[in-house]
Parts: sequence; C-alpha cells; structure tokens
Amino acid sequence: MNFEHSPRVVQLQQELSAFMQDHVVPQEHTFKEQVATNRWSTPPVVQALKKRAKEQGLWNLFMPGHAHGGCGLSNVEYAPLAEIMGRVFWAAEVFNCSAPDTGNMEVFARYGTPAQQERWLTPLLAGEIRSAYLMTEPDVASSDATNVELSIRADGDHYVINGRKWFATGAMLDACKVFIVMGKTDPNNPSRHLQQSQVLVERDTPGISIVRPLSTLGYWEEPHGHAEIVFDNVRVPRENILLGEGRGFEIAQGRLGPGRIHHCMRVIGAAQRALELACQRANSRVVFGKKLSEQGSVRESIALMASKVEMCRLLTLRAADKMDREGNKAAMDAIGMAKIMVPQLGSEVIDMAIQMHGAGGLTEDYFLAEAFNYARWCRIADGPDQVHMMALGKQVLRAWAGT
Amino acid sequence: MNFEHSPRVVQLQQELSAFMQDHVVPQEHTFKEQVATNRWSTPPVVQALKKRAKEQGLWNLFMPGHAHGGCGLSNVEYAPLAEIMGRVFWAAEVFNCSAPDTGNMEVFARYGTPAQQERWLTPLLAGEIRSAYLMTEPDVASSDATNVELSIRADGDHYVINGRKWFATGAMLDACKVFIVMGKTDPNNPSRHLQQSQVLVERDTPGISIVRPLSTLGYWEEPHGHAEIVFDNVRVPRENILLGEGRGFEIAQGRLGPGRIHHCMRVIGAAQRALELACQRANSRVVFGKKLSEQGSVRESIALMASKVEMCRLLTLRAADKMDREGNKAAMDAIGMAKIMVPQLGSEVIDMAIQMHGAGGLTEDYFLAEAFNYARWCRIADGPDQVHMMALGKQVLRAWAGT
Amino acid sequence: MNFEHSPRVVQLQQELSAFMQDHVVPQEHTFKEQVATNRWSTPPVVQALKKRAKEQGLWNLFMPGHAHGGCGLSNVEYAPLAEIMGRVFWAAEVFNCSAPDTGNMEVFARYGTPAQQERWLTPLLAGEIRSAYLMTEPDVASSDATNVELSIRADGDHYVINGRKWFATGAMLDACKVFIVMGKTDPNNPSRHLQQSQVLVERDTPGISIVRPLSTLGYWEEPHGHAEIVFDNVRVPRENILLGEGRGFEIAQGRLGPGRIHHCMRVIGAAQRALELACQRANSRVVFGKKLSEQGSVRESIALMASKVEMCRLLTLRAADKMDREGNKAAMDAIGMAKIMVPQLGSEVIDMAIQMHGAGGLTEDYFLAEAFNYARWCRIADGPDQVHMMALGKQVLRAWAGT
Amino acid sequence: MNFEHSPRVVQLQQELSAFMQDHVVPQEHTFKEQVATNRWSTPPVVQALKKRAKEQGLWNLFMPGHAHGGCGLSNVEYAPLAEIMGRVFWAAEVFNCSAPDTGNMEVFARYGTPAQQERWLTPLLAGEIRSAYLMTEPDVASSDATNVELSIRADGDHYVINGRKWFATGAMLDACKVFIVMGKTDPNNPSRHLQQSQVLVERDTPGISIVRPLSTLGYWEEPHGHAEIVFDNVRVPRENILLGEGRGFEIAQGRLGPGRIHHCMRVIGAAQRALELACQRANSRVVFGKKLSEQGSVRESIALMASKVEMCRLLTLRAADKMDREGNKAAMDAIGMAKIMVPQLGSEVIDMAIQMHGAGGLTEDYFLAEAFNYARWCRIADGPDQVHMMALGKQVLRAWAGT
Repeated sequence: MNFEHSPRVVQLQQELSAFMQDHVVPQEHTFKEQVATNRWSTPPVVQALKKRAKEQGLWNLFMPGHAHGGCGLSNVEYAPLAEIMGRVFWAAEVFNCSAPDTGNMEVFARYGTPAQQERWLTPLLAGEIRSAYLMTEPDVASSDATNVELSIRADGDHYVINGRKWFATGAMLDACKVFIVMGKTDPNNPSRHLQQSQVLVERDTPGISIVRPLSTLGYWEEPHGHAEIVFDNVRVPRENILLGEGRGFEIAQGRLGPGRIHHCMRVIGAAQRALELACQRANSRVVFGKKLSEQGSVRESIALMASKVEMCRLLTLRAADKMDREGNKAAMDAIGMAKIMVPQLGSEVIDMAIQMHGAGGLTEDYFLAEAFNYARWCRIADGPDQVHMMALGKQVLRAWAGT
Repeated sequence: MNFEHSPRVVQLQQELSAFMQDHVVPQEHTFKEQVATNRWSTPPVVQALKKRAKEQGLWNLFMPGHAHGGCGLSNVEYAPLAEIMGRVFWAAEVFNCSAPDTGNMEVFARYGTPAQQERWLTPLLAGEIRSAYLMTEPDVASSDATNVELSIRADGDHYVINGRKWFATGAMLDACKVFIVMGKTDPNNPSRHLQQSQVLVERDTPGISIVRPLSTLGYWEEPHGHAEIVFDNVRVPRENILLGEGRGFEIAQGRLGPGRIHHCMRVIGAAQRALELACQRANSRVVFGKKLSEQGSVRESIALMASKVEMCRLLTLRAADKMDREGNKAAMDAIGMAKIMVPQLGSEVIDMAIQMHGAGGLTEDYFLAEAFNYARWCRIADGPDQVHMMALGKQVLRAWAGT
Repeated sequence: MNFEHSPRVVQLQQELSAFMQDHVVPQEHTFKEQVATNRWSTPPVVQALKKRAKEQGLWNLFMPGHAHGGCGLSNVEYAPLAEIMGRVFWAAEVFNCSAPDTGNMEVFARYGTPAQQERWLTPLLAGEIRSAYLMTEPDVASSDATNVELSIRADGDHYVINGRKWFATGAMLDACKVFIVMGKTDPNNPSRHLQQSQVLVERDTPGISIVRPLSTLGYWEEPHGHAEIVFDNVRVPRENILLGEGRGFEIAQGRLGPGRIHHCMRVIGAAQRALELACQRANSRVVFGKKLSEQGSVRESIALMASKVEMCRLLTLRAADKMDREGNKAAMDAIGMAKIMVPQLGSEVIDMAIQMHGAGGLTEDYFLAEAFNYARWCRIADGPDQVHMMALGKQVLRAWAGT
Repeated sequence: MNFEHSPRVVQLQQELSAFMQDHVVPQEHTFKEQVATNRWSTPPVVQALKKRAKEQGLWNLFMPGHAHGGCGLSNVEYAPLAEIMGRVFWAAEVFNCSAPDTGNMEVFARYGTPAQQERWLTPLLAGEIRSAYLMTEPDVASSDATNVELSIRADGDHYVINGRKWFATGAMLDACKVFIVMGKTDPNNPSRHLQQSQVLVERDTPGISIVRPLSTLGYWEEPHGHAEIVFDNVRVPRENILLGEGRGFEIAQGRLGPGRIHHCMRVIGAAQRALELACQRANSRVVFGKKLSEQGSVRESIALMASKVEMCRLLTLRAADKMDREGNKAAMDAIGMAKIMVPQLGSEVIDMAIQMHGAGGLTEDYFLAEAFNYARWCRIADGPDQVHMMALGKQVLRAWAGT
C-alpha cells in the first residue's frame, strides 16, 4: 500500500504539466477561434502542438506495453498523466491520447490482422488520421450491448450494411478515416452474445450519410463532434471483419474497461482545475465587504470539493491498479465504482465552481460550463449510471450470497 | 386553507393549455429553424402566435390589478398560468408575459411618469417593442445590489453614462428598444442605498456598444440572448431618470419579488414537462427485456421527481399567496424559500429525466437539455442561491432571537 | 387557493400552543422521571394533563365528523393542531390523539358493531383504555399487507390464533386492553386480498405472551413501547371478528391513509421545534470568537432547514386537503408524497439541528436525538420509503401512459 | 502507487479476521447480557478474550514504532486491522486498541516522564487499567481547543482543579484509573495557545464527582460510557503535569491526528459489515414475490453502498500513508478529508442497510442501529464536521492563493 507515484511518473507529470502550462493553456482562445472558422477540422494550433509533443516523446502514453508505440506505462502510471490532459478538453489529442482513438487503437492492436494494423493502426499511432467507434443507435437502449439493430449481411465476398448509428464521437472530423461498426451478422443466433460482429468501414464509402452532428447541453464539441450516421446498402470487403463473425460482443466488452477509466481520469483533471479556479476566484472576489475565501460557507464548499476530487482520484487509481494486477475482467467491480462515482462527483465539484463564479461561470469565458457538460455526458457515455449500478450491485450481492 | 384554484383560474388553465397544445408545441421545430436563420429577431411564428393570443384575451396575464391592461389576476392566480407557459421556453412571450419585460412593465407602471409610460409602457403592453434591465456587471458581485460601478453623471440637462453591463437579457433582440440602466449618480453618498439611480436609455443611443452575446451552458438563448454592453459617454436627457436620483436601489428591491416568483413558476412548468416526458419514455422504452416503467428503480425515480415538482409548486403558490395578502416585502421569506429550492429541485428533476432518455436526453432533440440550462441558470439569476440562503437564514434566526 | 387557516383553526392553534407552553413543555423532565420509575404505565403527569385537556375541550380533535366525539375538524384543519402536538413526543396522548389509538378508534367507528363500539370505542374515546394494532411480523415483509402468516382458525364459535407479531406499538402499556389482530382466516383463498381477517383480542387472553419490548436507535419509547408478541392457541369468540371474514386487507387499506398523514404532521412539529432550538442555539453560542448566528454557513443551514420544514408542511396540508375533498383513496398519490418526503426531510432538519448543538445534541438533554429517532422510524413505519416510492411511481407512470 | 497490503499485513488481517469470526462475533450476545448486569464494568467475556488475544500476539497493534510494546506497524499497515476491529463495537479493546486509551498511551509514550510512564503507561499497555481524556466542556464550544474553562491553579506543590467536563469517554468504567485533564493554568497569557496545560488526575481523587453518564441517540455505550464530571477543589501534586505548564494545546494537537484516523478506520469496518448484512438480507428476503436482491433499486443501493465504503477506505489509507511519510502535521489536509467524509458516508451506508432490514434494522437485534449511532457520533467527536471543513477549506484556499 503506497500512494506515491514512481519517479518515472513524477518526471512525466512534470513534463506534461509544463507542456500544458507553456503550450496548451495559452492556446485555448486560439483553438476556439480556429474551430469557429472551420468546425469539423483539426485546427492548425492542434496540429502544431501534436508535432511538438511527438518530438518531446509525450506521445501515445496511453498504449499499454511496448509494442505498437507503447512506452510501457501501466494503467496506474498513465492515470495521473491523463488527469493532467483532462484540464483542457482538446489536450488529449495533442498527445495522441484522445478518445475514441485510444480505444480504437487498442482494438486494432489486440484484434486486428497485420494488414488491418498496417492500414489503420500505423497512421493512427502516428496521429495522421482519426477514427470513430459506432456502437450506439437511436432506437434501442444501447447500454445493453447485445441490443443492436444495424444489419451486417454477408453477400459474396462483401458485407452489406444497413442501419442507423448516433453518438459516433469523432465522426464529424474530416481527419476521421475509418469507422469500427458494431452490427448484427447473425440476428437469429440463439446466443444473444454471438449475433454481433464488428467491421471496418472507410468513412467515404458510398451509402454512408453523415446526417448531422448532435449537441450535448448546447455544446457541439467541435471539431470532433458526435455524429448521426445512416448506412444504406454500404458494401465492404469481408476481410474488413474484426476477429471474426459473431465476436463483436466480445470485442465490445474488452474495449470498454480502459475507455471508461480514461474518461474518469480526464474528468478528475477537469474537476481539479475547476477546484483551482474556484479557489482563485474566492481568493480575489469581494462580496458584501469580505473576500469569498474568508466566508465560512465558501470554505466548507472548497473542503467538500477537494475531498470529492480526491475520492474520485483514489477510486480511479485503485481501479487502474487492479486492472494492472488482475486484468480488466477481474477489475470490473473497481472500474464500475469509478464509472459510477467519478462523473457524478466530478459534476458536483464543477457545479459548485460554477456557482462561485456567478453568472460568468456558465459562459464561455471560463472552462467550467463546458467541463460540466463533459462530466455530465460521462454519466451517460459508455452506459448510464443506472446500468453500471445494476451490474455492480449484482456482483456485490453475489459475492456475499453464500454468507 | 384550500388547494383548489378558483373557477376563473381553472378556466384560464384550460384555455392556455389548449392554446399551448394546439398552437405552441407544434411550432417548436419551426421556431428553431426561424431563429437559426435570423438569430436576434423575433421569429415570424412568434409574431403570429402573439396576434392570436391577444385576440383570444390571453394577454398580459401577469399584470397585477386592472390598470395598464391588467386583467386583475393575483399572484396566486397567475402562478398556475405561468407554469403552463414555462413548458416551452419562448411561450411566455406569446402571451406578452416574458421576462424581463414583465418586470420592466411593472417598473414603468409603478414608477414611471405619464410621459415615460406613454412612450414605453404603452408599446410594451401592446407587445410592439421589448426592453432590457441592465443591472449586472462583470467586475463586481452584483448580488449585492449596492455594488454597482457604472457611472451616471449629471451634466447640464443630461446624464452621461460610462461603464459596462452584462447578462442584459433580451438586449440582443432587434425589437428591444429601451434599457433600464442601474448606475451610480452619487457614489460618495454616505448611505450605500442612496448612491444608485435608474435611467431609461434608448438602445440605439450613440456610445452604446453591444459587445457580444453570452452563452450559458452552451446555449445562446436566441432570439432574446444575454448581452454584454459598453457605455462610452452615452448621453440621455435628465427626464429619463426613474422616480428620482438616489432611488435606484429602492426600485431594484421592489422589482425583484415578482420576477423571482415568475421564474420559479416557469421552472416548475419545465420540470413538470420533463416528468411527463420521462413517464412517456419509461412507458415505451425496453431495456434488458423489460419496459423501463416496470423497473423498480425507475418507479422510485419517478416518485421522487413527482414529489419534488409538487413541493416546488406548493412553495411557489404559498409565496404568491403571501405576496397577495401581505405584500412583497412581508413575503420575502416565502419568496426566498421558493427562489432557493425551486431552481435546485427543478434542476434535479430535469437531470433525472435526461438520464432516463440516455444520450438523446442531452441533445437538441428533446427540450430537456435546454430546460436544464434554464433551471440551472435560475440558480444564479437574480442572485445566486447562497445570497438568498444567507438572507433567509438571517431572517429566520432573527425571528427566534428573543426566545 | 388559499393558505390561511380558518378562524376556528387559528383559535384552536392558539389554545393548543398555550396549553403546550404552559402545561406540557414544563413537564418534560417530570415525565422522564416518572417513566423511569414505572416503564410501561401512563405516568401520573400525563393522567393529570389528560383531565385538564378534556375539560378544556382539547380532546379527540383527530376524529372526523361529529359522531363518536368528533368535533368536526377536517383533515386539513386537524393538521396544524397535530403539528403542535408533535413538538413533544407524548403530547398527543394528552389530547387523546395518539397513535395507534386514533387509527384504531377510526376502525371501531367505521367497521365495529354497536356491541364492539360500546365495549371498546367508548372507553377509548374517553381515554380510559388504550389499544394496539398488530400487523407487522418479524419473518415476512409486512410492507406487503397480504403477506401475513399469523393463523386465525375458526373452531366452533371461536377463533384460534397462532403466530408472532412485532412492532405492536402501545402494546407494552398496562392501560392497553385490546389488540386488533391481522391474520389469515383463509390462507388458500385464490385472491390474495381475501385471505386476511382482523379480530379483536383482549390483551390478557390466555396464550398471549408479550415477549419483549423492541428498541429503535436505542430508544424504548416508554411507556407505550413496541412489543413482540406470541400467540399460542389464543381463543376468542367469533363475534370478535371485524367487519367479516376475508375483509382484513380492506380494513388495513382504509386505516392507513390518515395514520400516515398524522405521523407526517407530528414529524413536522418535531422538525419545526428542532429548527427553533437550532436558532436559539445559534443566537447564543460563540465559536471562534463569533456567534454561530453570524456565520455564513450556519445561516445557509438555517435557511435550508426552514425551507424543508415548510415544504413538508405544505405537502402534508395538500394531502389532507385532497383527502377531505376527494377521499382517502383518491388522495393516495398525495399521501404517498408526504409519506415519502416528510420523514426524510424531517430527519435531515433534525440532524442539522443536532449538529449545531455539538455532542450535547445527541444526548437526552435535548429533545433532538429522540426526535431524530421518531422521524427515522417513520421512514419505515407503515411501510418503508421504497414501498411507497414504488407505488407512487407506478401510479404516476400510469397517469401518463396514454400520452 | 500500489494498492496491495504487505505480506505481513495480509497475514495479520487473516489472523485478526479469524479471531473475530471464531471468538468475538459469537460472543456479541453474551457481551450484552453481561453488560446489562453490570453496566460500568468490563464484562468477563472481554477479559477472557483480552487474555487470548495477548497470548496470540494480537496486542497493542496500534502503537507506532517498536518501543512501548509497539510491533512496528505504520499507520497504513494498522488501518486495515483497525477496520476489522470496527466490525464489533467492543472488539478494539480485546486487542488493547480502543479509544481513548490508544491516544492516551501515545501521549504517555511521547510526553510522559519515566515515572509517569511507569505508573500509568505500563499497566495501560498491559491492559490492566483504562484511562480517559477530559477535554470537552458543556458550556463552551470545545471544537476550539483553546476554549477551555476548567481551572488548574498552582498552590504550593499542588494544583487545584475546578470545573466541569463532559463526554469523557471511558470514564464511567470501573477499570478507568487515570484522567488526562485539559485546563487553564495561565488564563491571562496573551497567547491563546499557551494558557492551557494537561495534568494527570487519579479517578478516585477527592473532589471528583462523576455526575452521570450521557447517552447518544439513546445508547449509553456501556461499559465505557461518556461521563459528565465535576471537579471541586481537586488537588494533585505538581509532578502530575504533562510536558510542562502552558503546553496543553500542543499536546492536544499532537494527539488528535491518529485518533481521528483510528475512528475512521473503525467506522469503515462498521460500514463494511453493514453492507455485508444488507447483501445477506437482500439475498434471502422476499418482497412482493421477488427476492430483494433481484430488484433493481436494491442493486443500485448496494452498488452505491459498496462504492462509498471503498471511497472511505481509500481516503483513510491515503491519510495514513501521508502521516507515515510526511508526519501528522503535513498530513492534516488528508486527515481532514477522511474526518469529514468517512463518518458522513459511513452513516449513509449504515442508514441504507437499516432501511433494507425494515423495522428490525432499528432494533437491538442487529448491530446496525448501534453502528449508526457510532458513525453519527463520529461526525461530532473530535470536532464537528463543520470545524474540519472550515480548516480544510482554508488550507486548500491558501494553497492556491498565489496562482
């Protein structure tokens, strides 16, 4: 039991924090301006920062192991680094560590054929292209991963795809070149877990319509966006299947653990920054003749905020540690706890920081409102809280069933 | 003690609900399209509905008494009507009952000279122009109403105005013709409550720059918007003063009670609609093989949501009733309770409804995300929760001081 | 819509408050001393106060209508009076308005034969004896009223009763003379709602063992107590049946509405007193050089406490009003809301008052800890929160099912 | 960063759990019976278990370092062991690890003279006597440790003590032989932190009256109890001073860190046991035709309970680790977080477990109600939540003051 990060991690924390402070934070305004001009395109400022980060070796930090550009960080080592990236929404991409590409790269690394890897993983690792993961559908409850309606029908040496997806994060981006698409190849298979497959689809394949971007709480999250996409007799070669027919559910399960934990890490970074902003505000703002920081109720709020951020951090680190030591499957309970509590508590912390900023806290002048949107969205992304509570509760209940 | 509305109110509820159902709700999509084309202009659909509502006598329902177009409804009679309007964000304007115009019309009616009334109140009551109330400033804590920096300096038979305001709701609108501006005419007056005055300023007076609209949680609230405005040596004739120099704080106090309660009423309408949408969703959506409405945790959530909406409603009605019987000042405690609890509980209800809608609940496809923004914004508008808790707590503590 | 009590109620409030202030509150200490000497006997101080209250006409205020000693108060008229009684735990009995006797008297009045009424209702109305209602069993979930295991078997002109009950409130008291016992006369009836009957059993019938009193959160609630009782071949004449065989569930349903609301009213009284005590404490206690009442966080707490008490009060009054106008059955939703929210919010208010009193707040020196126990117990009594949330949720969901 | 306990700790966890399971839990009923007979005396069952635990080397595990019987466990190593002890209220004493003796032994070890250590520390370490720490006074806010009124006046070679203390935990116990008493030797010292001293007083010194035990939430916490004690011209020799005159505040500060963390550890044990009991209940209880464990809302509750227990555990372990690495003073922020959150979240978990047990959950039949009392009491013991929030908030605000 030891709560200190290793010297290597401490060193990386320092480098990353310095990079954020010196190069990323000062560009937040520029980013907004560039994105306003060209909504769905990676802005030049990000392109330049990516180059710099790559040169500095702050690149692909997320990738476990040493193959595929991985620098050998464990989950518990990566966590504090992802937290730092979470302080600016678009910062993760600068270090080629942004969702959904991280999860997709892991999928390619673990399940892709050499040809698929060469075609897609290599440019993804180089940060040259981006990708999307098409899981959620508007007409069914996608928190049940077996519950998918998009059809993938074999037809000679092709698959023909028909259906509708939404909340395809990143799919609006012009640099997005490939979709990993979950659908049903065998809808009548008696096992609900063997009906699904995942296939690779190039974004510009005929029959694909990107219907529209979707907003969350008023944010369009440019330039990556969340897309609604229609597949109308889209044909892809059969070698585009991932892992094999009927194994889509299996891939989905394997992909989700790290993805959820990465979201938690970044939410913690956002909440930590919100706490710091609240402190700065309280230390400078005078109301009714007294600094906010001298008012008892503000001090109580700050204490609760700091405690909540720390609880989130510890829960996430512990889940990461369990993933490292026992594997993603064995760590499902710990991942579930983080998935349930971190977006919830993170939202609360950010909400309190907004409140301390008055009306301005809700505007685009601070990062708070958009941070709230991110934390709030994470309460639904990868399954709403309720689904994870059900699963975790079931597991805990079973653990004590024989007693 | 009687919780039934009078026959006249029941009749008006029915008329208003029918109007909403038949004419307003079906136009929600059209409204968005027209606003997208012309951000800061009242959309044609609203213009047409205003005409219809006026013809039907559903007009200026908010105005107390019978003078100035008032139809003699008390606050407690108006409350359930405002709740119905709150089910669609822009509906209040259809009935000429939208903020900040309602509060401004009351100010004109109560404090305006006959000339001022003829010039501004008459067209406002007719729904021909709109108005804004410029109170909040970016650089000071405006929850302390004495805490204003904008300067109103007498210069011959004019006032010269310099300073910066923000969160001037409605000021982006092209139909907005007049600002009521709070500033300091006598910054050195030993009484902090006599330094302020309110003056009327036409929106197109030279020296006024509408710097930008402000978003809250990603929403720009077109077409009315929240504006940031700079005054640079803006000159207005001295007859534009309201009530007299040094009486700005007094006007501000008188204006706030009804305004807060109107916001509460509309938040209740939004929360009630969110509850109904959640029920409809739960009654139709199947997850893990079972309708949401058959799941215990969903039923518990719905029960809590319904209870919270009802508590908000009762708290607001009781405040309205106290205002009617004892006056706005004596009702400050009851108003404070509603102001504190309704936006908070309303946010919680809407948040739960979002959660039941999954990712879609955060998008523009439902009214939920924007409703959340409205309720959240009301936790800061007219003073953040904390300021009202401080004031109410002080008052309650004093009430039991001698015991 | 009108939040003022009628002149008669205002008059009764004043009389009752004066009685409480002059005669009940000054005896709180004496009550404890007398009860310590003689745990399960109505203490002399209560006997004397009952006499005085009866003489003053503050008697049986709970009884609806004018028959059976009722003074014709409606539920909404009785509510503020029950609230006043709730400020001291044992005060309701002084006015012959204490649970479970009130509910039992209503049962006798509504369902009893003239002979049963003469035998039991008359002395109950006179405050000469007390009664208990035996519903809950330790081995089954009694929140499902059909879920009862005690056997009532017909045998000639007698019933033979076997089984175990617990949480028989009031059954420890030596003045308790009669039990209303719920059990199964027809366990194989295909309708789950026709298997149960209720019979009257004298407390000293052979075969009855009062096993033990039960504590809640460390309180034994002397002198009434909560008893665990075993029935071992207890024989009662068949005329002791209430209403008829198979109608036990029906009686249980009819009895519960008013009982729940009465509990809510008294919890509100306890919470209101806790709020007042907190104010008095805050107005006098100095911490870190400042009165508690001058500290921002204390003011915020007091504001929340006052708001919560008011919400509870309004929710309960509205349920009472709906019961008066539409009947207990139609008011089930409103009763459910009060049952769910009032004990919960009441507990929170009392908990905050304890916290402001420091360690002393948890002791017997203040009424707070025992008040907390009462409010907490009410979250389970007459069915745990969860059961009422399920029922209310189901009802609300159904109301919007067709929309 | 590593969340695994060392092999030695894992070994001790197993031994301790086995001891609890085999010897302590089976005696819970006997403990109650024996205490009922002889309220303020260590019951024979505890005496026997102490002997056994000592023989097994499960003794004085709390004591840091290797001197004074310490077995060299760090705080982070002791934490999971104290958690196990917390599963039964009186279990800590079995291992000579119970409050307030642990804190008192640390005081003797750190600040006592060799003579004081021989006289008091030696028998305390041997478990032959017990001790109390007299800090809190009824008439002042004792959360401000400078705020003490008891007078310790030098008179020749004696001190004369006058004043009143309460919440002297353990002082009711007949085995309690010595009090550490905080009072003012120099009430006029211009430094508020140099006015206090601590002196050792034998419990049977003339002039001491143990006025009464105090209950919390109805519990008397026999046999240790919380005592109210009056000092009336109590004389003790001057060599009974601890550390020196004017150093009482300094000792108080040094004593509090570990004490708070030990309470947190035990609350976690109680909450963990409550969670397990809730699972067992849910796995066996049938309501409305379905096991509780199959109901969605129960699963959600269990998930939240498990997550909260884990957050508490991690927060406490992290504080312990920081104490080990950086010292108690540097760890004040981490200790504060645990002190604020653990009793609060622990109360919530136990409260939810009570709710799942229905009425029985509030009785003495389960350990839940008394566990709730313990967790609730910890929200006030060693300073109410609010005081710790104020201190932590101030510290966090200061940390970000220059940014």
